[in-house]
Order: sequence, then C-alpha cells, then structure tokens
Amino acid sequence: MSEIVVTLPDGTELPVEEGATVEDVAYEIGPGLGADTVAGVVDGELVDKASPVRDGATVVIVTDQSDEYLDVLRHSAAHVFAQALQRLYPEAKLAIGPPTDEGFYYDVTGVELDQEDLAEIEAEMETIVEEDLDIERELLSREEALEKYEDNPYKRDILENEAADEDPVSFFVQGEFEDLCKGPHVESTGEIGAVELLNISSAYWRGDEDNETLTRVYGTAFESESDLERFLERREEAKERDHRKIGGEMDLFSIPEVTGPGLPLYHPSGKRILNELSDYAESLNLDADYEPVETPHLFRTELWKQSGHYDNYVDDMFLLDVNDEEYGLKPMNCPGHATIFDQHSWSYRDLPVRYFEDGKVYRKEQRGELSGLSRVWSFTIDDGHLFCRPEQIEQEIRQVMDSIFEVLETFGLDAHVALATRPEKSVGSDEIWEQAETQLRSVLENQNIDYDLEPGDGAFYGPKIDFSFEDALGRNWDGPTVQVDFNMPERFDLTYTGEDNEEHRPVMIHRALYGSYERFFMVLVEHFNGKFPLWLAPEQVRILPISDDQLGYAHRVKNELGDFRVDVEDRSWTLGRKIREAQEDRVPYMIIVGGDEEEAGTISVRDRKEREQQDVTVEEFRDHLQSEYEEKRIEPDFLDE
Amino acid sequence: MSEIVVTLPDGTELPVEEGATVEDVAYEIGPGLGADTVAGVVDGELVDKASPVRDGATVVIVTDQSDEYLDVLRHSAAHVFAQALQRLYPEAKLAIGPPTDEGFYYDVTGVELDQEDLAEIEAEMETIVEEDLDIERELLSREEALEKYEDNPYKRDILENEAADEDPVSFFVQGEFEDLCKGPHVESTGEIGAVELLNISSAYWRGDEDNETLTRVYGTAFESESDLERFLERREEAKERDHRKIGGEMDLFSIPEVTGPGLPLYHPSGKRILNELSDYAESLNLDADYEPVETPHLFRTELWKQSGHYDNYVDDMFLLDVNDEEYGLKPMNCPGHATIFDQHSWSYRDLPVRYFEDGKVYRKEQRGELSGLSRVWSFTIDDGHLFCRPEQIEQEIRQVMDSIFEVLETFGLDAHVALATRPEKSVGSDEIWEQAETQLRSVLENQNIDYDLEPGDGAFYGPKIDFSFEDALGRNWDGPTVQVDFNMPERFDLTYTGEDNEEHRPVMIHRALYGSYERFFMVLVEHFNGKFPLWLAPEQVRILPISDDQLGYAHRVKNELGDFRVDVEDRSWTLGRKIREAQEDRVPYMIIVGGDEEEAGTISVRDRKEREQQDVTVEEFRDHLQSEYEEKRIEPDFLDE
Repeated sequence: MSEIVVTLPDGTELPVEEGATVEDVAYEIGPGLGADTVAGVVDGELVDKASPVRDGATVVIVTDQSDEYLDVLRHSAAHVFAQALQRLYPEAKLAIGPPTDEGFYYDVTGVELDQEDLAEIEAEMETIVEEDLDIERELLSREEALEKYEDNPYKRDILENEAADEDPVSFFVQGEFEDLCKGPHVESTGEIGAVELLNISSAYWRGDEDNETLTRVYGTAFESESDLERFLERREEAKERDHRKIGGEMDLFSIPEVTGPGLPLYHPSGKRILNELSDYAESLNLDADYEPVETPHLFRTELWKQSGHYDNYVDDMFLLDVNDEEYGLKPMNCPGHATIFDQHSWSYRDLPVRYFEDGKVYRKEQRGELSGLSRVWSFTIDDGHLFCRPEQIEQEIRQVMDSIFEVLETFGLDAHVALATRPEKSVGSDEIWEQAETQLRSVLENQNIDYDLEPGDGAFYGPKIDFSFEDALGRNWDGPTVQVDFNMPERFDLTYTGEDNEEHRPVMIHRALYGSYERFFMVLVEHFNGKFPLWLAPEQVRILPISDDQLGYAHRVKNELGDFRVDVEDRSWTLGRKIREAQEDRVPYMIIVGGDEEEAGTISVRDRKEREQQDVTVEEFRDHLQSEYEEKRIEPDFLDE
Repeated sequence: MSEIVVTLPDGTELPVEEGATVEDVAYEIGPGLGADTVAGVVDGELVDKASPVRDGATVVIVTDQSDEYLDVLRHSAAHVFAQALQRLYPEAKLAIGPPTDEGFYYDVTGVELDQEDLAEIEAEMETIVEEDLDIERELLSREEALEKYEDNPYKRDILENEAADEDPVSFFVQGEFEDLCKGPHVESTGEIGAVELLNISSAYWRGDEDNETLTRVYGTAFESESDLERFLERREEAKERDHRKIGGEMDLFSIPEVTGPGLPLYHPSGKRILNELSDYAESLNLDADYEPVETPHLFRTELWKQSGHYDNYVDDMFLLDVNDEEYGLKPMNCPGHATIFDQHSWSYRDLPVRYFEDGKVYRKEQRGELSGLSRVWSFTIDDGHLFCRPEQIEQEIRQVMDSIFEVLETFGLDAHVALATRPEKSVGSDEIWEQAETQLRSVLENQNIDYDLEPGDGAFYGPKIDFSFEDALGRNWDGPTVQVDFNMPERFDLTYTGEDNEEHRPVMIHRALYGSYERFFMVLVEHFNGKFPLWLAPEQVRILPISDDQLGYAHRVKNELGDFRVDVEDRSWTLGRKIREAQEDRVPYMIIVGGDEEEAGTISVRDRKEREQQDVTVEEFRDHLQSEYEEKRIEPDFLDE
C-alpha cells in the first residue's frame, strides 16, 4: 500500500499507510495514545476514531483528557436519552440528536411529552448508565438501513441526503438500542458521570418553517456530578441575568408582536446605554483618525451583485420591488463604504482612508431562530472600513488591536485571540497573502499577544484575527473581528495612484470594536447583571429625601449635579422602601437627604453595594462622579476612597 | 333672492345675495375695490373674480396690490407663452400651464424645442404683450369644448376629470388664442411688465411615469423689468449656491446611480455637519427633558393599519413581503413612539412623557421628482413626540416654540409663524379642540409672536403651528411644525390614570426642530453658500507652513488645538496658492507659520474674509475657537476683536 502524510498539532508530519484511521494514526504516534483514543479532530471536524484520514489532513487525537471529550460524552448521552425514551414510549420516532455547547438535544415525534415526563425519562437514563452498556459501531448496507427506517421519514431523509454516498452506513449500538450515526461516542454508557434533562421546546425538521413540528428535548451530561452541579448553578444564574428579564425590569427595550419579530424598540433607558456605547466607539475612532460617514439602508440590488453579497446572502436578504427594479435592505455596510471611497481619486499619500459608521444591517433569520436581542432581523454594527497600501496593513492592524483591547478591558472582559490564515480556495496573489499574513503575525508577536493559529480558517478573500471573550459567568462569546480583504477592492475596481504614477489596488480592512450593538448590549446586560458601570447606567444617581419636606433641597442637589442622569424619588414612601427600590433598580449611587443634611448643606451617599457615608459635600461627590464617569470605572468606588 | 353671509379678512361678516360673485362681494364692500378687483381668494383658493361665493365662505379680494397678484400675472404669462408657441408652431399641442413659486411652466407636445428656440418664442411673447390684447372669460358648452379638443388628449382628460361636473366650461380668450382655464387672469396682456423664458425639461403627464413624456418650458414674469432683473440675479446666485454644486466642491455627499436614486451617501465632511446638527438638537432635547429612544425601520403593516398611515400613504410606502407577511419601511416615526409609550402603564404624575429620535423615514417619490437632497427616498427627521394631559398643551407648546426660535436664530433665519385651526372634517370633541386652540393662541399671544391665522387649515386630527423661514437669498422654506394630535392616542388606545383613578386619553404632540435633516442641510448649504459657521465647518482650521521646514511646527500647533478639526497643508505649494486653495475650500480660519513664527512660538491667523493678524499665541487662538464654537457664532470673529 502507498503512503500518505498527515500533520499533527505541533506541526510535525507523520507518514501513515493509505486507508489509516484516526486510531491507526494514534497508535503510530504511540501505543499508549492509541489505547486512549476516543475520537479525532480531522481538518477541524470531530470524527469517530474509525474514520480514515486523507493525505495532507491535520489530525488531532481526542482522549478523555481533551476539550472535545465532553462533546463526545454528550453525543452518547443523547443516545442514552433516545434509548430511555424508546423503552418508555416505544411509539416515539427519532429525528436527530446532536451535542451542543451546553449539552445535547434530541428531536422526536409520535409522542406527547411535557416537563413532568422528564423525571421518569431521566431515571431510565440513569438506569442505562448503571447498566454500563458497550457502545459499538456497526456497519449496515444502505438497503438494510432504508428498510429499518421504513416508518421513519427523518432518518430516511438523512440517508437520502447527508448519507447519500455512504454504503455501508454507520450505526451505533448499545444494548437493545441502535441509531443511524457517524459518531464519535464514548466506549460505554457507564462513562457518563451525570445526566440531566433540562426542558422541552418545539422545532421544525431541518429548521424550516414549512416542515413538520418536532418535539425537542434538551439535556446535558458531564463526567461528574460536581461538574453538573456547577453547570446548573451557572445556568440558574444565567436565567436570573437573562437580558430579556433584566430588560423588562429595567425597561431597556421591547419586541412587541404588533411591530414585528426580531425588530427591537429601545426605550429611553436602553437607548441611553446605546448612546454611551456609540459615543465611546466614536471617540476611539476619531482618535484613530477614522472619519464618519453615513450610507442608506436600501440599495439597488446591482450593488449587491457587484459586491458578491447577492450570490451568497440573497436568501437572508430583505428584497423589495420599486418600480419594477429590485432593491435590498443592506446585509453589510462594506459596499456602501467602498462606494464612497470610489467617488474620489486617491494618491498613495492620502492612504490609509478610514471610514466608520453605526450602520444598521438586515438579515432575515427564520422566525424560530429569533431570540431577544441575541438573534434579530436588524442590528447595528459599529462598522469601520479602511483602505490602505499593502505595506500599511501592519500599522493599521496594530492600531485596531489596540482599540479592541482597550474596549474589552473597559468592560472587564478577557480576550482570546485567533489568527486564521489562507484557506484552500482563495482569491489574491501568493505575494499579497504572504505579505498580509506576515504583517498580522508580526503584530501579534511584537505585542506578545497569545493567540491560536487556525490554519486555513481565513475567509476566501483574506486572513483575519478573531477575538472571543469570556463574560462574568464564564461563557464564551464571539467578539470583534479584524478582516483583511483583497476581494472587495477588486470587485469595486478601487484604485489609488502610487509613487510610480501607476494605478494600484488598495487593501480593504473590515473591523468592528463591538460587532453588533444588539449582541454586545445583550452580553453586557447579562455580564453586569444589569449593574452597569456609572458611565453606562441609565439612571446614575437617585436622590432620596427622608421626607417630602426635603423635596426642594433634593431638586437643588440634582441641579448642582449638572448633566448626570439623576432622578429625585418623589413618592411618599418610607426611606427603607425608597432604598430597597433604588437597590432593585440597580442605581449605582443613592443620595439621602434629611433635615440635618439640608441644614448643613451636605448629603449622605450610599452605593448599590450598600456602603454609606455621611457629611459629603455635593461638590466633592460631583467631582468624584466626573472622574468615575470619564475613566469608565466598572464599579461605583466613591466609598472605596 | 335669499341672502348668504361671507366672512372678510378682518373677521366681519358681510351679507350678500345668493349667487353673488367675488366681484359682487368687492362692490358690496365699496365701488373702488369693486373696480380694482383682479381675482379672489375663497376659502384659501385663488379663483376668478367671476366665481360665485357660497354661504359661510371666507373671501379675500385680490387687487394689483395683493401678494396673489403676481400669481395671476404669471398665469396670464403662461397663456401668452402658449399663444406665442402656437403662432410659431401651430402643430404644438398644449397640456397644462400653471403659475409656480418662481414663475410658470407650460407642458406641451407635438413640437421639438431646444434652449435656442426660446429666444424666438420670448420675442413673440413680447410682441403679444405690446399688442395689449384683452383677456376675457368665455363659457362654452361641454359639447363644444370636447369637440374643440378632439385632437388634444390632455385637455380632454381635464374635461373628463377635473372639469367633469362643469357645463358650461370656462375658457379664457386673448386675440386669436383661447385656452380651457378657470382663471384668474389679468385684464390684458399689456399688464405683464416683463417676461423671460428660463429653461426646458421633460415631465410626465400628471407626473406619472407610466404616461407620455411632455416638454416642459419654464418661464417667469413680473410687473416690471427691474423686478425681473432682481429675480434673475438671485437665480444666478442660487445656481452658484446650489447644494449639489457646493456638495461636490466640498465633498459633502453623493447620490451615485449604482446605489439607487434618492438614497444619498454622506461623505466625511457632510457627516461631520450632520453630526453637529444632531448633537445640537440632542442637547436642546435633553435640556427640555426629552428622552432618547430608537425604533426599527421596518414594521409589520399591521402597525400602519392601526396608525391609519396604510390607508393614506400606502402608495408612497416601500412594502415588502417576508414569509408571506407584509412589512413596510416606516414613512413616519410616530407609531413607533406611540408603541413605546404603550408598553407601560402611566399615572398623571408621569406626564408629559417626551421621546426623541433621529428617525429615518422612507417615502417613495416618483423618480422624476427626486432632486439632490431636497427630494429623496429616505430622510431623517429630528423627530419628537410627547404625550401629555390636555391642560398641559400650553406649557409644552411654549417650550417647543422656545427651542424652535432658538434654532432658527442660531442659523440667522427669520421665522414666519402660522396657526392652523380646526377644519370641517375632524376627529375629537368640540371641548378638546376648543381647549387646544385656546392654549396654542395663548402661547402665541403671551409671547407677542406675530402670526397668521389660517382658519380651517389644521389637520383633521388637531390644530398646528407651522413655521416657515427666509434664507439669505430671500427664498421661503417650510420649517418646523408643532402638531397637536387627538387621533393617534385613540388609534393606539393610549391611556394614563388620572388623579380620579379613571383611565384618560393623553394628547400627543408631534414636533421637529429641523424637520428633515436632508432638507435642512440642503438649505444651510445654500444659505451659507458653503461658508459654514465654525461649529459646523467640516474643516475648521487649516495650517499653512510657509515652507516644508515648518511642517513639524505646523503639526505641533495642530496638536495644541486639541479636538478641533484641523488639517495641515503638506503640499509643497507657494503660500499664495495654499491661501487661495483654503479660501476656495471655505475654511473659516487659516494659520500661517513661517520661520519667524516658529522661532517666536506664535502663529499668524487669517480668516476666510481675508483679514489677518500676526503674533498670536496658540493658546489665545484656541480659547477663541472654543468660545466661537460653543456659542455657535455665524461668522469667524477672532479678527473682529
């Protein structure tokens, strides 16, 4: 047999026999690893250890020590769920059951389930775990497989689509249960340390509203009970912090049925936060010599054909007909900015040219996919595009990275960085890819930034640096992106005149500091649990007069605090109730004024951490507010001093 | 015969015989006025003096001393044009020829005209004026009229639509010429003091793109040659100041064909001006306790049906289909704001609730109507809506009027104010109309504001105060509006709980300080001739080093000027050329630095009015810039001091 070569995570190249599986590769590395192999990651895809590898593939071996092990375990837990369901409800039909970031789900039909049925199924799952059944791969002919699923249109659909080329077809078997499945799985049901069924919802087959509705059961699984408990605690905390819940409590936004799905309305408190975020991004952009622009929301589809978005995004675009011409709401801001650049002739001395805009974009997600502010139909990007000479990429990327790190630090978010390089299919010369990737790597290395290399994960039109960050609940979110683009300048035929008096093609760089305001706003609400830093808080200070006699003094104090967002509590409640209410409303600072304070011309200050100080002058407090606001400090800290 | 009663401009009621004409009313007032009567304005409409008046009508007599006289004269000039055309081109077919704000036009067909033909037609018009032909009204039967226009589909169209109920039909005759026309006209062609044909364009019959294209000839007419000359000078000046021309010179905006018509892109210089305007409106709004909100651009059409816009505006709306449901781009911001108000329950103590938003709206004008920034498909309104108790109307209107006057004064624009009251068809009780109109009148009178009363000109849903203003060229523009609305709160079933614990209906007030940003921006460009006040100027200061040796010093001076929009001229030109260029670019201030200045650590300051001063310290100049900027002074005034 002839030899092929695979690449290991450390970059070494390993020759193996043609037809070798992931497990064979592991044994080739060492017999210990071979024995411990659970699955593999081949060219970025999690696969069964029995999968063959192709020449040139990148192969990572997954053992029970790998991050991917949990995905494998949860996939097996999904099978355990299906097995338990079929023991209790033999009439249930199975559709699909993949692992997810938080556990797994299984879509089923032919059975009526409600939340109360989950306990019984969960008990049966625990029985199956105790039975410690071996999980084994089995290969069936297409014919046998199709026959087996004569009465199951979903599995037949998979056989006729995703698995159309497979014969034999891969199944996994545990005890009396078997399921059409490519794996990977753990060795036996006993490896699953802890399972929990979470909730039931409905879903469309293949996510398409025109298809039948299925019952989706969500569950999770871990290696140990203590891991599960930690997860459940965090989940409870996340539920408490859900931005839809806090958004209602703090009156930040609404998405009423009458106006349409996925189209949020920002109420004054929410809009104040958005304005602060926008002002902050604007100040960073102006400091970095970006220039403000404004583009329409509606364009002729000619523009989207020119940019290439029409070919790739047309199904997600909102299209409309105007006088028999087709127009589209913009799914991206870049073609508008390229059009502005294209209205001029530029010299090499003018570059870089940098534009920014809070640009609203529109993407037609399925209604079932819409959820609060995390998935919407229209969202605003703090979108920036710059046009530079190829040799200026490094300086520009460095500047963008500085801004991004500053933003994440301001919100107390820890960043992870990844560099994604040239994929197999790409546009642009070898020279320009080389030049761009070298400059990106040089920024990361010169600034001592830890980063993951993701070879081949760049866009077809250029390499990029992706940020993700962890919030206060330890959840990971996709963050800002810096994307080099060789394609858009070609498509719009953008040029500048070089020192040599010839026409040259500029490089375009896309960047956003927040990404989508909607998404970032949502993350911030949950990250801060609504307890926003002073600079973001919709209501920054509430003045609580001890009795109505001090209402006049309270208003005078408010006036002395100038432009800060200050309310006077004018309801005739007890001081205790006023304090509780301000606490619940998450106001950073309360000012308490009684007869003594009025007489002395002072105030008492209390913060939402329940710390208090008396005999403060208004001026002293205002000066503090000013610096806390300007420095964007995360927690109220007047009483730290 | 029985008597009817008409109302005169001073409010007196005059009884006249049933069937009396405008001219009869004038003779009833006095025989002198009767003899001088040219036409009448009946219930706001300019009509022929032979028109009968109805019982209850408001009647204004038009003489050659009235403002309306010029419209009458120009209407007659349009007939003179048509007569001249038919003398020279008997084959020409006439469509319509009304007076306009700047003169008149006539749409014709069956003849090929270009700019050079106008001189000959104009000469023939002058001959007709010299002939001093009597202009007389003639009544023809419908049958005769239809026969006369057997070969003219436009006139037949008018006979079958606008004049469908008329028999006999009104014509006007002068010499050999006659035209289907309701008048009014002057007595003879000799009354026309001066005529000028201006230009030719094309137009659709009835403005509808599906109809035939006609040739439109624009002309103007005045009582005297000197009036005409003044007009032509101003027209030349307006052409020089055309915002499309200055917008190109100053690189403010573009409307490229590829992106779509009526959909402007703002370039950095234009966006900077918009941002300053928006910040100014925001500061006025926040000072007046308006709260910021944000609403989507796209809504289910359910919302527009509820608001009533669907019934009235559907032809102008951009509609789209999303998953078989109809959605519309918003033509107005008010329903979005009403929806936000409706998300809460409100007590009388919470009112007024005031929202503001720079809200983009969309109106599908005919492509032929689109022009620069003055008629566009999407424009942004500095839109505010407040919800108050009926007795709070006065205080709120007073506040809004204060803001509007402040805005107009800031730009050096003179305001005219008109109060439009209840029309015949209206919603809302007598009591609430009475209450609202009394409060509006009371604001105007208590503040000694000169205003025109426009009885019956209010919207069906409430009374309003309209502003218009005059720009530096003496042109009048529609300005801000304050509109009381009893209808929208009904349609959205908005309520608050009164002191009596019952549910009450709030009153909604619509207001804008600028109206459309696009329109206001266009007016400002032309009003200032691109020479924006410092606070608006996209480039506020340009530093001109005498030689490249001072480039370093120039950049240090720029840094010392902080956040002002300062550029350093780094092209190696002569100082003379640098100054000319900065002058052409309309930059308010130039700073000139040579070796002497660098040595002394000073600067020379020159303004765009060509005044200059040497030995200025950077600090002194920066302090001046700060106060000129903050006080929004209209002209650079450092060198006035």
